[in-house]
Amino acid sequence: MLVLGVDPGTAITGYGLVREDDGELTLAACGVITTSADLPLAERLAIIYRRLSELIAEHRPQAVAVEQLFFSRNVRTALAVGQARGVALLAAAHAGLPVAEYTPLQVKQAVVGYGQADKAQVQEMVRVVLRLDAVPQPDDAADAVAVAVCHLHSARWFDVLAARGG
Amino acid sequence: MLVLGVDPGTAITGYGLVREDDGELTLAACGVITTSADLPLAERLAIIYRRLSELIAEHRPQAVAVEQLFFSRNVRTALAVGQARGVALLAAAHAGLPVAEYTPLQVKQAVVGYGQADKAQVQEMVRVVLRLDAVPQPDDAADAVAVAVCHLHSARWFDVLAARGG
Repeated sequence: MLVLGVDPGTAITGYGLVREDDGELTLAACGVITTSADLPLAERLAIIYRRLSELIAEHRPQAVAVEQLFFSRNVRTALAVGQARGVALLAAAHAGLPVAEYTPLQVKQAVVGYGQADKAQVQEMVRVVLRLDAVPQPDDAADAVAVAVCHLHSARWFDVLAARGG
Repeated sequence: MLVLGVDPGTAITGYGLVREDDGELTLAACGVITTSADLPLAERLAIIYRRLSELIAEHRPQAVAVEQLFFSRNVRTALAVGQARGVALLAAAHAGLPVAEYTPLQVKQAVVGYGQADKAQVQEMVRVVLRLDAVPQPDDAADAVAVAVCHLHSARWFDVLAARGG
């Protein structure tokens, strides 16, 4: 199974494609989509939508995972992130892919095992589980990879629980 | 000139199509796009995108006007509005239409003439300027019509200033 993790933002959207084969996770690709603040907002959103649609067409993931944000930075940031998030979800819907949303707490619990983990611990666990030489760069790409890993771990737990009749 | 005003929201997106001919404004169409909370978020956004794209294809407006929100209700609302706003801007970009954004203050100044106007005054002025028997219903449709009227008023002022060399 291949999962596309997305960390949406208008200026910088991180993405990470993680594959699971027989319980083993590998990183297929990761990176960021950046858009210039000089462009009109609608064009910046169109770039994010187009690049994500291209990534989906190229790699053919079976699911998209996005972090569910309830952050408190400020309302203006939330609106800007929401706009990028909206077009990311639309790209998934237009490709017929299911979207899974995870809270930051769920990502930490799934990746590190407990919800109080800090960002550095999450990134280090992602590096270890994917057997990478270094943490994916920049942070937005690493966050997107983490939410994809979270989705694969969660899917595995669903299987375990289903097998146990739980 | 025909302008599509949009008041985006995940549950309810208002739209209003206002035409200007020789300085006279008429309402071509208005209404709301509603989506069920029972649907996955990505599907709800896909419905908003599809309906707006259909409205654009059907009516062929020359511009899209959207309210620029800096509201303080809460971060979660801002994220939800942002997502709907993102797909609305994308529908405009995909149709090759310019997008104009106006703050609530600009809408009030353009429609009523001063920024301290309340919602009822804005709606009443919209009704009068479009010679309607009643204020467009529901509120989301009325707000979308108001931002379209704002855009046409602003465009006219640009013409006046340009003619004066200002």
